[in-house]
Amino acid sequence: MKGKVYLVGAGPGDPELLTLKALRILRAADIVLHDELVTQEILELLSPTTSVRNVGKRCGRKKISQAQINDLLVACANRGLTVVRLKGGDPLIFGRAAEEISALQKAGVDFEVIPGVTAALAAAAVARISLTDRQRASKLVFLTGTRYREETTTDWRDTLRSDATVVVYMPGRNYDELASKLRLAGIAGETPCLIVSCAGTHRERIHQTTLRRLGHLARLPAPALVIVGTVVAVDRNPGGEARSDHAWLAAMGVRTS
Amino acid sequence: MKGKVYLVGAGPGDPELLTLKALRILRAADIVLHDELVTQEILELLSPTTSVRNVGKRCGRKKISQAQINDLLVACANRGLTVVRLKGGDPLIFGRAAEEISALQKAGVDFEVIPGVTAALAAAAVARISLTDRQRASKLVFLTGTRYREETTTDWRDTLRSDATVVVYMPGRNYDELASKLRLAGIAGETPCLIVSCAGTHRERIHQTTLRRLGHLARLPAPALVIVGTVVAVDRNPGGEARSDHAWLAAMGVRTS
Repeated sequence: MKGKVYLVGAGPGDPELLTLKALRILRAADIVLHDELVTQEILELLSPTTSVRNVGKRCGRKKISQAQINDLLVACANRGLTVVRLKGGDPLIFGRAAEEISALQKAGVDFEVIPGVTAALAAAAVARISLTDRQRASKLVFLTGTRYREETTTDWRDTLRSDATVVVYMPGRNYDELASKLRLAGIAGETPCLIVSCAGTHRERIHQTTLRRLGHLARLPAPALVIVGTVVAVDRNPGGEARSDHAWLAAMGVRTS
Repeated sequence: MKGKVYLVGAGPGDPELLTLKALRILRAADIVLHDELVTQEILELLSPTTSVRNVGKRCGRKKISQAQINDLLVACANRGLTVVRLKGGDPLIFGRAAEEISALQKAGVDFEVIPGVTAALAAAAVARISLTDRQRASKLVFLTGTRYREETTTDWRDTLRSDATVVVYMPGRNYDELASKLRLAGIAGETPCLIVSCAGTHRERIHQTTLRRLGHLARLPAPALVIVGTVVAVDRNPGGEARSDHAWLAAMGVRTS
């Protein structure tokens, strides 16, 4: 009897932002291998008979290598188990799924991907900003802070020169470095930015600033992401009436700097 | 007594891909105003006492203007109702949410955004491709077919020149026009493309081709999207072993052209 592996998106952290399908599959799992970003509240939904293992990074240090995770997925499936590989957000966005999919295919293991709410959507929902506001953005670009260090500024300039909303996943510890890179890529210092930390959990924090000031900010707790673009502007009245929305920003816990 | 408006993402169509929160709020709604893309299976989850209205487009023709939708949301909330504005996918991705958010803020109506699984994630899950495979893509770009006609080729060239995965929402009726635009923007003719139609529903269809051949394809039923980039390649063995994955593609209903 062959088992099956499910690559499942856990969403941003709030158990209510799991999909119905993710919940059904989690509850039927024999074993769950989860990332560091998956919250305790979600793990509490599992059956007491489900075996649970954290295979994530802590402080950037892996407990277990990617190759070991791949082997574990294959070995568990070959023992006939229903295996869930649970990833924060969506499994196919900055989640190292390619390596796992390749290993499962090579081993001939049956698998399925269950999408989830990726962090950018949860952060935008909390901040109530349309990522693709027709007046302000025609493109939405997802980047990672991890990757940008390996890239040349020219690459970013190509991507960001036009009217895009840019979401930086895993912005890292150094907002100053990130801000410099974005400004070198041609984004104006006055462009609004929103840093959203722990979106969709009770530890959620939002801070609005400009690209110029981003580097001076104290780092917010991970997981965090940065949304850069004019869609972040508080005055979003397409009728042209200037109107400050500081009241609603304050009401939802946004401090403006 | 004031009501409240919820902008809710319905996900790709499969009721199991609703979030738990979306389901809870839908079931408590007095009135649901939904887009054309929201499936019958999801509407069947509503309470029989909930009033339901389709405010979407049919064949590109709107039944009701955006201004009328805005007014309806405000009027229903002012009557003390719990109102759900239900959108396919995620409400903040190509969903005209900016206009509605602005109207609600102007009218002082309490509202909340509930994120959903956007179509790109559902399509990638069905096709089991990592949108951000570290070997192949460092950026993920979302565009719309609706918007690209208004833009110059130069804009696209800037966005697409580097190693990006590009997802085109609402590719429109003319794949030939879309393919020409992408090739003019500098994407090679041999770049793999995946067209996913009705992802996450039982009408789902997937077709894999190359950018060169995209224009010759018969149009698949809407909602559809096109994923362009080397992440789509069937041989995704990072170990370097050449291996054809036609068997699993065939097993999941992908015809390769």
